[in-house]
Amino acid sequence: MSTVLMNGEFIPREEAKVDIEDRGYQFGDGIYEVIRVYNGKMFTGNEHLERLQASSGKINIQISYTVHELLVLLEELIRRNNIHNGIVYMQFTRGTCPRNHAYPTSEVPPMFIAYTKPLERPKENLANGVSAITVEDIRWSRCDIKSLNLLGNVMAKQKAAEANCYESIQYRDLTVTEGSSSNIWIIKDQTIRTHEANQYILNGITRQKIVEICQRQGLEVKEEAFSIEDLIDADEVFLSSTTSEVTPIVSVNNVPVASGEVGETTKTLQDYFKKEIIACCGEIE
Amino acid sequence: MSTVLMNGEFIPREEAKVDIEDRGYQFGDGIYEVIRVYNGKMFTGNEHLERLQASSGKINIQISYTVHELLVLLEELIRRNNIHNGIVYMQFTRGTCPRNHAYPTSEVPPMFIAYTKPLERPKENLANGVSAITVEDIRWSRCDIKSLNLLGNVMAKQKAAEANCYESIQYRDLTVTEGSSSNIWIIKDQTIRTHEANQYILNGITRQKIVEICQRQGLEVKEEAFSIEDLIDADEVFLSSTTSEVTPIVSVNNVPVASGEVGETTKTLQDYFKKEIIACCGEIE
Repeated sequence: MSTVLMNGEFIPREEAKVDIEDRGYQFGDGIYEVIRVYNGKMFTGNEHLERLQASSGKINIQISYTVHELLVLLEELIRRNNIHNGIVYMQFTRGTCPRNHAYPTSEVPPMFIAYTKPLERPKENLANGVSAITVEDIRWSRCDIKSLNLLGNVMAKQKAAEANCYESIQYRDLTVTEGSSSNIWIIKDQTIRTHEANQYILNGITRQKIVEICQRQGLEVKEEAFSIEDLIDADEVFLSSTTSEVTPIVSVNNVPVASGEVGETTKTLQDYFKKEIIACCGEIE
Repeated sequence: MSTVLMNGEFIPREEAKVDIEDRGYQFGDGIYEVIRVYNGKMFTGNEHLERLQASSGKINIQISYTVHELLVLLEELIRRNNIHNGIVYMQFTRGTCPRNHAYPTSEVPPMFIAYTKPLERPKENLANGVSAITVEDIRWSRCDIKSLNLLGNVMAKQKAAEANCYESIQYRDLTVTEGSSSNIWIIKDQTIRTHEANQYILNGITRQKIVEICQRQGLEVKEEAFSIEDLIDADEVFLSSTTSEVTPIVSVNNVPVASGEVGETTKTLQDYFKKEIIACCGEIE
């Protein structure tokens, strides 16, 4: 049985239970992060924890740990669970108190839980690409907050699953926003594009890393929303996320993207991204 | 210590805990209802449970209980907790399974919990009215589902609390939708208006009851959205909800509604509504 981190304590997985009046359970009133682990080491752990702090600030959940303290706790959690390749999932909710929409007025400590899960790299998807469908973005207008209010994402992902696809590409008024659990990118005439980081998308850590790579390598990249039409017309399409890295999308709504093969620029980005991982965590397969 | 209903079993309150991978806790993937209890009897219990069934259908959570079976269980819960005036809170989530956005593909039983709380009628608010502010509606476009994704509502209510107001009146593109936990009504030249029951509001049971009362009593009622301007210009404003019944709003954004007094039509509706309660649950104060 694995070990879970709960409010700073390491406890057995089967004891990891929360009260029914935890505000995470009644309102989705909390925030979370998923951090990738390669070779037992967290990749972009700092960036994820800084985004967690940013999310907590946006909804005024008081996290009493520094980024460094969290890193130390999560490293210990990874060690105790003997995770080689996997993820750390963590969330903070506003804590437990009698149900009332407004934030508690008395001191209520947030509930912090974290656990690990083994997970290998999605090598087949990385090599061959995945298919996607487009769905209307029905979510709220604060998708920049990585909150537990994920029912819109869940419903979008479920539609993809029912269509035997890997991901749903969401659009708002015909503008592509993001995937149900990923950012979406197109490449057209060598220009790489993804939605700007505003309140309609979550600014993915992988997304930020890719922008950085493009800028460093002299690849043209634009953080600028594009339309469904641009998507259909793209030379290459890919998605990015913590667990999916740079995953090619080779078909959208059952129609092949360009030739239907994984594109060359996408492959180049995969290579650069893999080098980032290796530089941080050591050799990977 | 009170008694909680969990998956059909009555258990002590302190044992009412859920797993950290309950989908309600990680995605807000669940639905809920709050039913009012007067004199130990549920008011509009059927209607709430039918709406629960409707919500569950919209997100495909399989509830294995009939409305009648739920009523019997909730009656027993009220009895065991010796609730005279109060509420029953209940929710169903999609259950516990390893975290993944899409619905579980194997059979995962939903998690059902219900508990009670004593609560008196808000007599002072009913008599004197409350104040409200207006805030932008940032929520998703499926507010017709009574789901646990309530962070937008929470943030709106918190703004009201910070402004020393009782409620936030939300608007989308200058159209008033609903309160953070209530429906909003205006009265102008004897016509009573509230937003139509579409995907932008939750169709309140109290709201439906008021429409029914108006129609029966020959009061002009329109289920038709109105603007912020109409709100400001109204003769009377009130909110409706399960716990607030028909509560007058006497000021919006620090400006009195009309004379700032509780309006006559609102008082008439309060009287009719009270008669409904008495007809169902017996004499109330």
